[in-house]
Amino acid sequence: NDAPKKAKKEKAGKKGGGGGKRLPKIAKGARDFGPASMVVREKTFKIVTDVFKRHGAESIDTPVFELKETLTGKYGEDSKLIYDLADQGGELLALRYDLTVPFARYLAINNVGNIKRYHIARVYRRDEPSLTRGRYREFYQCDFDIAGQYSSMMPDAEVCKVVTEILDAVPIGPYQIKISHRKLLDAMMSICGVPDEKFRTICSSIDKLDKEPWEAVKKEMCELKGLDEAVADKIEQWVVKKGRPFEVLEDVKGTELAAHPAAKVALEELALLFEYLDGMQCLDKFDFDLSLARGLDYYTGLIYEAVLLDASIGVGSIAAGGRYDDLVGMFKGGGKQVPCVGVSIGIERILAIMERLHGGSTRTSHSQVLVASAGGSMVKERFRVCAELWKAGVCAETVHTAKPKMQKQLERALDAQIPYMIVVGEDEVEKGVVKVKTLSTKEEVTLSRSEYVDVLKKWIAAEPMKEEE
Amino acid sequence: NDAPKKAKKEKAGKKGGGGGKRLPKIAKGARDFGPASMVVREKTFKIVTDVFKRHGAESIDTPVFELKETLTGKYGEDSKLIYDLADQGGELLALRYDLTVPFARYLAINNVGNIKRYHIARVYRRDEPSLTRGRYREFYQCDFDIAGQYSSMMPDAEVCKVVTEILDAVPIGPYQIKISHRKLLDAMMSICGVPDEKFRTICSSIDKLDKEPWEAVKKEMCELKGLDEAVADKIEQWVVKKGRPFEVLEDVKGTELAAHPAAKVALEELALLFEYLDGMQCLDKFDFDLSLARGLDYYTGLIYEAVLLDASIGVGSIAAGGRYDDLVGMFKGGGKQVPCVGVSIGIERILAIMERLHGGSTRTSHSQVLVASAGGSMVKERFRVCAELWKAGVCAETVHTAKPKMQKQLERALDAQIPYMIVVGEDEVEKGVVKVKTLSTKEEVTLSRSEYVDVLKKWIAAEPMKEEE
Repeated sequence: NDAPKKAKKEKAGKKGGGGGKRLPKIAKGARDFGPASMVVREKTFKIVTDVFKRHGAESIDTPVFELKETLTGKYGEDSKLIYDLADQGGELLALRYDLTVPFARYLAINNVGNIKRYHIARVYRRDEPSLTRGRYREFYQCDFDIAGQYSSMMPDAEVCKVVTEILDAVPIGPYQIKISHRKLLDAMMSICGVPDEKFRTICSSIDKLDKEPWEAVKKEMCELKGLDEAVADKIEQWVVKKGRPFEVLEDVKGTELAAHPAAKVALEELALLFEYLDGMQCLDKFDFDLSLARGLDYYTGLIYEAVLLDASIGVGSIAAGGRYDDLVGMFKGGGKQVPCVGVSIGIERILAIMERLHGGSTRTSHSQVLVASAGGSMVKERFRVCAELWKAGVCAETVHTAKPKMQKQLERALDAQIPYMIVVGEDEVEKGVVKVKTLSTKEEVTLSRSEYVDVLKKWIAAEPMKEEE
Repeated sequence: NDAPKKAKKEKAGKKGGGGGKRLPKIAKGARDFGPASMVVREKTFKIVTDVFKRHGAESIDTPVFELKETLTGKYGEDSKLIYDLADQGGELLALRYDLTVPFARYLAINNVGNIKRYHIARVYRRDEPSLTRGRYREFYQCDFDIAGQYSSMMPDAEVCKVVTEILDAVPIGPYQIKISHRKLLDAMMSICGVPDEKFRTICSSIDKLDKEPWEAVKKEMCELKGLDEAVADKIEQWVVKKGRPFEVLEDVKGTELAAHPAAKVALEELALLFEYLDGMQCLDKFDFDLSLARGLDYYTGLIYEAVLLDASIGVGSIAAGGRYDDLVGMFKGGGKQVPCVGVSIGIERILAIMERLHGGSTRTSHSQVLVASAGGSMVKERFRVCAELWKAGVCAETVHTAKPKMQKQLERALDAQIPYMIVVGEDEVEKGVVKVKTLSTKEEVTLSRSEYVDVLKKWIAAEPMKEEE
């Protein structure tokens, strides 16, 4: 949220004169993005989109609001964070809370049985904003999902690979992806003797192990949630298991967990996945971590969450997802299920880091040529030259001052890092020429009206600005 | 709103079996966009964005909702179409109705005195949806505005030029831009003897002259709105004036209107603008039309509206805008005004035409290579090859079937118009090679694992797919 450079920080609203109106406010937890932010944001979105496209993903878009009933019963406790629209007659609507439920609704409505799609769009949560934690009420998500009946773990492996490609492509430091399986967690609970009705709440205690020591989590489980201490101790022997994927698999082999029917299937799936990730040369980015729980109810298989390793750069999850095979079916009565697996990139955290590390000095406009008056007005002539450049696809501008001083025009070109200047005056018009200055070298050449556009285009093509996409 | 090709039109919700749930609905007046629509939409947005960038415009973004009070009193009668958010405690919010008021609010809050910016985003109106007229409740606008104190008509001329460049760039047929001046209209009313309190309502009658004959409009003015018939007759002599800009200027010269002080200034401004548009080689696209009124209250000077000439392609305004010098000041008490001029491109109508004329046969994914198994599973090996291609920036995919038949893989490549196929089998792995097929020519070559990526990259670079951006 950059304050534009040209802005002077006068508090207009507080001045005594006339109106006395308050300055307008922006909604809590929402942000304006000025040109400097937008350059970083667009560049980052392009990096992400390029990865999605490289994997053959198609793009879809859905409305910012859904029928209230579409969102109901999908988010558990977090449903209270949904933004409702006012009842103004007609349908009851709410702003989308994520891109996953609208995707499932899209698949159900349009009877799409298989698709590999990405969706980059804003979602809305009436959460308590926290600028330091990068939590807003309106924020972008970048989702990549594969829907359809496919061979075991093949789509899952590709989604995992996509996460690594994105996190490798955005320069935000080293990361690790924790990976586990929802059925493994359920089996763990079961063999440790956690009562069925406590599965969810004990899960959310376990999920805190990345921030709190075991003793604190155990205390919460036993004292706050009434878990038997012997059960908690049994849980401990499992949730501390984490590390290199194949090593943890080996570690679990032959144990009570490996013998549990559902866990056995989950471990076989994970073993297959690790093979595939090894084939894709990215297994080193993954840790098999039995303490990973993930909050959302709709996951049915694989789950994963990426975190940055350098806490000085940023903390918390920067990408997360998993398999959700039953969500589409919630929308389709007698219809068949559409199994899905996907990931949501926490792009706002990545953007905050990108802006901090890489923002600031970038150009915010694309002008390559400033068309200047040598003296006097020359407005019509300047516009004529601009139009010739625009027609040729060259980014050009002229100052919107009828009789500009050369000094002002030069300042504008230097401020905006515009590399070339074309100067037109009465003399040049008469002779059918223009003067072209290269501002970095201060070289000046006189070119005929018939050739200057082509010459400039060649110069520009030979030296593309690094800010250009 | 394309139904994805793979979709089978079975009505899942109407089947008898089990659940009996209704299929979910989408909000009235809103749309899903499938991959084929998205290709056309993204292509069109890029054309528009390229024009904006060519003119050195910067990009900004604002939240989808504003404080209710920010939107209050800006849209006149149309305020009833604003979507309010429910009062869930905290601020009262509403969805943005256009991009102009949020832009003015942005300028006021951030104390931006001058900026040339574009903004492509969705706006929301609780209007009666009309699919045939391309009217939706959620739709995109593409706005380009220049804010700041500049020499007369220079920013105005550039905005007009931008409109012509965009409408020339999107292949939707011939168009014309009607142009006039708000102050001229007010002066016309005044000298004809329209009472002050009837200015607005008579204006909106005049605005119908593009769809209705003079007699119908006169009847509305006199019978419905109680205008004196002599006054109506006087109006007629003015509003019928339209045509080539300099000719209409000439026509008006020496008349009562030209002598009116405010009209005199407006005519001088228009004369200057026409000179500039002539310099920019686009004056032929403009008609000076004294019947142009434009609904919104906030215009203070130049107004314009672009229409398609070929009614078989589409009807109605496809771009409109004008000068609004007082809007930012509505947000700033004692602060100084920030004069603005801008245009809003009616991109949904353009998109509807583009989809009709140019949609359908485009590719929706970017895959250039399908990595196939020669027989047996080869999943890990296929993923390994994919990963090598992805790393090199090549768009590649493999079918997510553990033991795919060659025929199925070939069908996928042909369906998705993927030009190359890499085939790996036990034999190839052993020899350290891959087979590369060019599907259009059915040629097949065997390449070593160390060279195939570079060879494919060269082939792809030499023959870029026309669907690529």
